[in-house]
Amino acid sequence: MAGPYTIGLDFGTNSVRALVVDVGTGEEVGTDVFSYPTGKNGILLDANDPNLARQHPQDYLDGLQHSVRGALARAQARDGFDPANIIGIGVDTTGSTPLPVDAGGRPLAFDARFRDDLNAQVWLWKDHTAHAEAVEITEQAAAMRPEYLAKCGGAYSSEWFWSKILHCLRVAPGVYEAAYTWVEHADWMPAVLTGTEHPDRLRRSICAAGHKAMFSHAWGGYPDEAFLGALDERLPRLRRTLPDKAYNIADAVGRLTEAWAAQLGLPAGIPVAVGALDAHLGAVGSGIEPGTLVKIIGTSTCDVIVTPLDGDLPDVPGLCGIVPESVLPGQIGLEAGQSAVGDIFNWFVDGLKPAGLDHQALTAQAERLRPGESGLLALDWHNGNRTVLVDQRLTGLMLGMTLHTTPAEIYRALVEATAFGARVIMERFEEYDVQAERIVNCGGISAKNRMVMQIYADVMGRPLQVSRSAQTCALGAAMSGAVVAGAEAGGHADFGHAAEAMTGVQETTFAPIPENQKIYDRLYALYRRLHDAFGVENQRDDLYDVMKTLLEIRDTAKG
Amino acid sequence: MAGPYTIGLDFGTNSVRALVVDVGTGEEVGTDVFSYPTGKNGILLDANDPNLARQHPQDYLDGLQHSVRGALARAQARDGFDPANIIGIGVDTTGSTPLPVDAGGRPLAFDARFRDDLNAQVWLWKDHTAHAEAVEITEQAAAMRPEYLAKCGGAYSSEWFWSKILHCLRVAPGVYEAAYTWVEHADWMPAVLTGTEHPDRLRRSICAAGHKAMFSHAWGGYPDEAFLGALDERLPRLRRTLPDKAYNIADAVGRLTEAWAAQLGLPAGIPVAVGALDAHLGAVGSGIEPGTLVKIIGTSTCDVIVTPLDGDLPDVPGLCGIVPESVLPGQIGLEAGQSAVGDIFNWFVDGLKPAGLDHQALTAQAERLRPGESGLLALDWHNGNRTVLVDQRLTGLMLGMTLHTTPAEIYRALVEATAFGARVIMERFEEYDVQAERIVNCGGISAKNRMVMQIYADVMGRPLQVSRSAQTCALGAAMSGAVVAGAEAGGHADFGHAAEAMTGVQETTFAPIPENQKIYDRLYALYRRLHDAFGVENQRDDLYDVMKTLLEIRDTAKG
Repeated sequence: MAGPYTIGLDFGTNSVRALVVDVGTGEEVGTDVFSYPTGKNGILLDANDPNLARQHPQDYLDGLQHSVRGALARAQARDGFDPANIIGIGVDTTGSTPLPVDAGGRPLAFDARFRDDLNAQVWLWKDHTAHAEAVEITEQAAAMRPEYLAKCGGAYSSEWFWSKILHCLRVAPGVYEAAYTWVEHADWMPAVLTGTEHPDRLRRSICAAGHKAMFSHAWGGYPDEAFLGALDERLPRLRRTLPDKAYNIADAVGRLTEAWAAQLGLPAGIPVAVGALDAHLGAVGSGIEPGTLVKIIGTSTCDVIVTPLDGDLPDVPGLCGIVPESVLPGQIGLEAGQSAVGDIFNWFVDGLKPAGLDHQALTAQAERLRPGESGLLALDWHNGNRTVLVDQRLTGLMLGMTLHTTPAEIYRALVEATAFGARVIMERFEEYDVQAERIVNCGGISAKNRMVMQIYADVMGRPLQVSRSAQTCALGAAMSGAVVAGAEAGGHADFGHAAEAMTGVQETTFAPIPENQKIYDRLYALYRRLHDAFGVENQRDDLYDVMKTLLEIRDTAKG
Repeated sequence: MAGPYTIGLDFGTNSVRALVVDVGTGEEVGTDVFSYPTGKNGILLDANDPNLARQHPQDYLDGLQHSVRGALARAQARDGFDPANIIGIGVDTTGSTPLPVDAGGRPLAFDARFRDDLNAQVWLWKDHTAHAEAVEITEQAAAMRPEYLAKCGGAYSSEWFWSKILHCLRVAPGVYEAAYTWVEHADWMPAVLTGTEHPDRLRRSICAAGHKAMFSHAWGGYPDEAFLGALDERLPRLRRTLPDKAYNIADAVGRLTEAWAAQLGLPAGIPVAVGALDAHLGAVGSGIEPGTLVKIIGTSTCDVIVTPLDGDLPDVPGLCGIVPESVLPGQIGLEAGQSAVGDIFNWFVDGLKPAGLDHQALTAQAERLRPGESGLLALDWHNGNRTVLVDQRLTGLMLGMTLHTTPAEIYRALVEATAFGARVIMERFEEYDVQAERIVNCGGISAKNRMVMQIYADVMGRPLQVSRSAQTCALGAAMSGAVVAGAEAGGHADFGHAAEAMTGVQETTFAPIPENQKIYDRLYALYRRLHDAFGVENQRDDLYDVMKTLLEIRDTAKG
């Protein structure tokens, strides 16, 4: 008999995916994607403010229904599949993507008074309207509660929960006052599925709260009222609606309501797991465990690693988040990331349009180049640097250009720059005794571009594996569905068992090529010097040899 | 009555131009261009060696005849023009472009034994086969004759006279032994016109000898036999064929032979001036005098200024040449230059082909940007740095890129980088009390691209004039023809009078715009720091503020 199965729901920036997974084998038996219909690619924009990015919560509800029904229809095309064998549901979303809701957990956006008010919609992760508030919160925390900053890289972001709410309070006090509380998208979806009318259903995900809202059980949950009151006297009222406890993905929020079961074609009463952020469940879907670094490589990257909760972990400077149980129960989750990776390659291809070459053509040409042969060296800071510098006010750099420099050489240099950036992150983990004994990659670029993966292996000096699933976030969500279902119901007792049964890597491992590694070690040393020269305060370096060393490496590489 | 007239002959890299000029008004009454037919665009190449670039001397003779006859035909279309009113000829050529000749001044290339031998042809200025010999000569001079290097920027170039001859001696000793002597192209053309059979007709141009062959009257002409013998025991033999005196462009080589007069349709016996290098006669054609900096802006630039011979001039570090009377009699000629200017813009447009935009489209877009608005800053070293760093082993740099950086922003940043490079040169002159009270520009870019000229004015903080003539090199050559003809024959007594009568500037002066200047002063300060950080030994700088200051300037500029 096939199954049982669980469903993973992956709410992305422009669409939602439902994935039906065989709990015993990890086989993905059905999937479907629903693109959000509202706004531009599902995003509500403001012509007057490029920083604004909102979503309408109805898109999530419509997407839920269409994607689950679509995935089930595909699964049912297989012999022996029966939706009655679905035993649990897990959810991931983008974040921090908060929305204002009433006391019944109903979005203000569904209220006729606020239907057309952009500030009453969902504030998408990439909304940057709260830039000033982020600075304000960072400064206030530095003065009053430095411990709040220590776990989030030293700076609170404009993309995060409190910045957005404080900005809403300033620009749309009516919305703020009308809202009972604010929830993350990752918290709202499980509440919806299990019945928002139960106050306890708005369980907060430790993943979203810990990484985005300065939540820690070490200081009693969310930031305290005195701190919030120092930011604005109206904030403590909101604080009193927030629980002091948050949950991890081994916890269930509740059980699927009769109404949603009927609407989706699923058994009523199956457990729904606490939600989490997409990258974190992507790490889970890639089989993360202590010693495994998972890199989710897309337009930007997220680098996730875990280390046992009972271990002795110092603050690792420059990491955007260190949160107990944010990834796996019993483990501290550490999150790092590069602000732009695929986005840099896309900028070169779509923004500069060099010779009309696309990614495929540039990759084909760049692949034939030897390391160092172009004489180029770049810094991958076109969108700032998230780890380890935590500094948005940094920009891209390229040097070594001659009158003969080609588009393919530049493309390769940009890829190499992101690989050097990846190595900085890995080394930072290891400097603080969080070893990456194994590295698993997932995300579009890792699946699609072998050249990028080989360069990463050569630069990082480690064998790189690629996750077997192309939908690791949804798979990770389905795994949480299997764990909350439990072993007795045919699911899994814990994530170790779930990973063993449901995850895997592709056959090909990208092994570092020793002669490339040697050259990249030299280039990386130069990269680090530029990195520190432009990115670190109070460094004085003599850079006279940089261009000359690059030319020497180039001349040797050309042979 | 119209005229009298002189003829300027401008032997370029791919073609020769003849220009008939009215001595009294500077009016250009007829011109014609002849493209060299041999090789690729007139250049003999070697598929196995990209450094090799030679020419066939027959192209010069054919070009002489066709271009002069063509220019005369056009002049004769005008009322009152009579070739009998032509009173003198001047010549400029590229250089260092030496060729091996026999005792009669006949090129070895015309000898059947050497017809197909590339080493017996003319060694074009851009031939870089003698790279190793240049290093050898530099080291030998540093050890034995440091004074030889002091006037040529501290390094002897692979493009220059002795490097090429030493290389020929090494790779083709048969050619070297068969040659009686070697002459510059600039010396050979006047000799041809006046009869190479007269030994005295091979008068050496102080311009070519001084800037390219370490010639100085201060040490008895060319490098001495002991020095040359230390390089190779066969070189002193050649040294003994070289005169100890060189001439400037106010000197005549001799008079036009009957044979050439008949062939060209000119009066026999008119004087032919000593030749000079193209850039230097371009400066003359732009009306150079003490206090006037002439910038010839094309694929690269040449910056020429003069200062009185009797003045007290220290060695100016980083200049490629300081040679008494190389530009004007009675003046020390100082030559600086940027290794690539138009070549950098061409690399961006033709090498990277951004979005298929050409120079015109990019200029139109870039012109609309405000200074500092792009947040970009570049170093213009894509072909090394000739002045003031005198270092080929330098490369281009650009920083400040974001995911929104556009091709037009990059184009403008490249233009600005070359403007900063131009300012470095101007400031170096002035640091050594050679004032640029007036700046006249000539060359293709100065005539064609108003945006470039305005940016140069804003960056340099000086009003910039543009030479009236589009053919300043040929005009300068025609002026030397007028001076050797002399006032009594209807020419000019000296170059001051010739300049007054024959040169002029365009009506439009590019005046610096004060608010742009203020921003460019800030950007130039950052440029200088990068310039010194990557280009000067033993400099230690803290560059942490560079990207941040650029962003601050950008944010202010965007308003």
